[in-house]
Amino acid sequence: MTMTAPEAPLPDKEEEFGRWYDEILKRTELVDARYGVKGFIVYRPNAMRMVKRIYEMFEEELERTGHMPVLFPVVIPYSYFKMESEHIKGFEKQVYMVGEAGGEELEERLVLRPTSETAFYPMLSLWMHSHTDLPMKLYQGVEVYRYETKATRPLLRARGFLWIETHDAFARKEDAERQIEEDLGIARRVYDELALAFLVIEREPYDKFPGAENSYAYDALLPNRHVLQIATTHYLGQNFSRAFDVTFLDEHGGHEHPYTTCLGVGVSRTLAAMVITHGDRYGLVLPFGFSVHDVVIVPIPYHDVEGEVDEKSKRVEEILRAAGFDVLLDDSDRTPGDKYYRWEMLGVPVRIEVGRMEVRGGYVTLFRRDTRGREKVPDDKLVERLEELEREISRNLRRKAWERLEGSIVTARNRDELVELARLGKIIRASFCGRKECADEIKDATGYEIRGRRVDVDEEPDERCAWCGAPAKRVVYLAKAY
Amino acid sequence: MTMTAPEAPLPDKEEEFGRWYDEILKRTELVDARYGVKGFIVYRPNAMRMVKRIYEMFEEELERTGHMPVLFPVVIPYSYFKMESEHIKGFEKQVYMVGEAGGEELEERLVLRPTSETAFYPMLSLWMHSHTDLPMKLYQGVEVYRYETKATRPLLRARGFLWIETHDAFARKEDAERQIEEDLGIARRVYDELALAFLVIEREPYDKFPGAENSYAYDALLPNRHVLQIATTHYLGQNFSRAFDVTFLDEHGGHEHPYTTCLGVGVSRTLAAMVITHGDRYGLVLPFGFSVHDVVIVPIPYHDVEGEVDEKSKRVEEILRAAGFDVLLDDSDRTPGDKYYRWEMLGVPVRIEVGRMEVRGGYVTLFRRDTRGREKVPDDKLVERLEELEREISRNLRRKAWERLEGSIVTARNRDELVELARLGKIIRASFCGRKECADEIKDATGYEIRGRRVDVDEEPDERCAWCGAPAKRVVYLAKAY
Repeated sequence: MTMTAPEAPLPDKEEEFGRWYDEILKRTELVDARYGVKGFIVYRPNAMRMVKRIYEMFEEELERTGHMPVLFPVVIPYSYFKMESEHIKGFEKQVYMVGEAGGEELEERLVLRPTSETAFYPMLSLWMHSHTDLPMKLYQGVEVYRYETKATRPLLRARGFLWIETHDAFARKEDAERQIEEDLGIARRVYDELALAFLVIEREPYDKFPGAENSYAYDALLPNRHVLQIATTHYLGQNFSRAFDVTFLDEHGGHEHPYTTCLGVGVSRTLAAMVITHGDRYGLVLPFGFSVHDVVIVPIPYHDVEGEVDEKSKRVEEILRAAGFDVLLDDSDRTPGDKYYRWEMLGVPVRIEVGRMEVRGGYVTLFRRDTRGREKVPDDKLVERLEELEREISRNLRRKAWERLEGSIVTARNRDELVELARLGKIIRASFCGRKECADEIKDATGYEIRGRRVDVDEEPDERCAWCGAPAKRVVYLAKAY
Repeated sequence: MTMTAPEAPLPDKEEEFGRWYDEILKRTELVDARYGVKGFIVYRPNAMRMVKRIYEMFEEELERTGHMPVLFPVVIPYSYFKMESEHIKGFEKQVYMVGEAGGEELEERLVLRPTSETAFYPMLSLWMHSHTDLPMKLYQGVEVYRYETKATRPLLRARGFLWIETHDAFARKEDAERQIEEDLGIARRVYDELALAFLVIEREPYDKFPGAENSYAYDALLPNRHVLQIATTHYLGQNFSRAFDVTFLDEHGGHEHPYTTCLGVGVSRTLAAMVITHGDRYGLVLPFGFSVHDVVIVPIPYHDVEGEVDEKSKRVEEILRAAGFDVLLDDSDRTPGDKYYRWEMLGVPVRIEVGRMEVRGGYVTLFRRDTRGREKVPDDKLVERLEELEREISRNLRRKAWERLEGSIVTARNRDELVELARLGKIIRASFCGRKECADEIKDATGYEIRGRRVDVDEEPDERCAWCGAPAKRVVYLAKAY
């Protein structure tokens, strides 16, 4: 498929985030939002390597931590769906309902899964007999469906989105609580590899997943100073196992309800976070392993050395392929300028230019996408340099992401500072009394939401809530949420 | 998760196919049909390696032949769905309809995809501009939904099933026709690796995919002498590109409709075909790469050599892991007999037994699942023997599958023979006049369907149709269809 020819750089990401985002999705042809159902997009070939790689990375971590893959139906009987009372309250205004099949009304309406607790639990109760069946740790990678009423935006807020969900059950409370730690570690390891920066947050009690006892989230930062929830993990206690009457026989012959947890990773949103965090005015910027290729060779033929340029380009391609790199020699008819534009837009981490000077000088010119810097690399050092660069680019992207996130966080000690920092679009750190009324007032006054307490750092609050002056319970972070 | 303890062998597959099939699915815990929506099943961990591997194999072949991955929404606007008139006639009695979301009626009802032509074509028309955009070859691996009214059966006939679909567009008719050949080759290569046997059939004109000009199918044989369609490819001509007004600018500046094709591979049915073709009274039988492990080591400890048995088992495990085999050392508390039962049921291709004799003799006892034969293999020949066995088992399973298929085919030269062979449950080869009336009579009289003409062999018909005596047009194959 063709891509648009070289054009002016994209708008500035910080200043015009909306335009930048729409335009980068269009020019990279990652996804197409022109599908005939609002809030649903088509993932195009340029996005699929990223989608697959994100799934693989999470699946590897999940299998390593003892999770087993399963695949549940997309439809959930309404009678299952309404079994956990908080859960249905939270989701019933968000679900798509199948009422008809083969031209006739169904006896029981079916819900398109918005999440799969109510599909899993009836089966868990068939599969779980004794404490020796526990822990039971299952995962699936699927699409889920939520009828969003807020404005949708490709990958960021959609009515159908890709995700991974785990559903874990344990004999003891402590084991379930430990699973929350493990879940947070799984997400942290993958997000580190994706070079993303994030706040790990415990949500406020009134802001939990419907049916959960505690909810934790990974919030990433967007350049428009909004935070984006990219993963959540929930401690469900015995709420769901009681509602679905899931039991196991314990060591003493008694029937007990297991303690359960679930992890939900937004694969579509993780993809969005990668595009947004690393991208610039020239397109995507990605670590190795996510773009359509990792290395692209662009020959720059001159009449007197055309044969030699071709030959050297091919030799470099062979060497890099043999060394295990995902390399493409772009010997198409496009001009070198067109090729530069195209592969930069798609975030190919390294470009190798082979022209007259390179043929004569026994080196190649290497362009790295993250810094847009060029360097000469002697032919016999190329493999080594690429191996270094793979780590270096990843480290550089991660460092920049963290600097930006940390540079956005400012502490507000009182109401005036909080209002002022919100006006400036900062992520706000503040001591908080824990009262929902206070959170509501802040939301009304500033548009900011209390995201919750960070669990990846230990923090002592001041004596007083920054907003209302009542005794403070914890330090929380405030931001506009996507 | 626990598996049932050793039990009597399964029923005989040939004599009691239905009982055998239900029982093997239950004991292997591949899938669970007790989910709350009829015709939908849960894929359990023991099935997921097979599911993933089948997807991977087809994806590799598709990418090798220039197909690009995409992912389309599960919902199709009804207005798209009804655009191709033959297509909607064929599918409208089979679709699930979403009519409601967030508690309110949708402005336009949405169809759960039964296949994705009507989702793809409106987007193709946005993506396709000039002849340089062609061929456009796309694929996706998803679940599709069809409201089957016949009795459903796990993996064989379901209301939701896993598949892969391609949608390819070409500037010229010949290129589209060549794609059919390529599609058949893709399926053949994968099915060969899965050690399946199959008939490659051109369907009769009245039996085409709704909207197609020609339909081709892979039919596998079940032990109850029914054939099972596991993949189809369709030449669509310009039917869909006209209906959706998809055009491209040709070399001369004219607007043309592309010629299109589609391939649909039933991943659920392919899994069923593997279970059914290779399985026996002791459970699954599988080539390397599909069971939960490829090699399982079972230590058989005796008091006087317990330490040595453990040590040797671990050493063998290390050697095989280093050689790249997917190996498990089963040092659980179960008895060796329990372990044998369990791993045979799950179709692990090779078991290695390490006991007193093996420790003393410098060899291991190797059990191969396909023949259930044991052999002694000297320690230093084990890796080599396993590498041989990987090919040998695959070859053996493929040979047996083909012998069974070919042994089931008998030629009927007249009506009496046809009725008699149908009574015996053979696959029937017969010369055929090509008239639908004749096919209907045969169906009424015998329950047999004309599957069509084989395209993988060249065959000359007799002068007369075996049923009606009119001039024969082609040799066809008849069977009961699943």
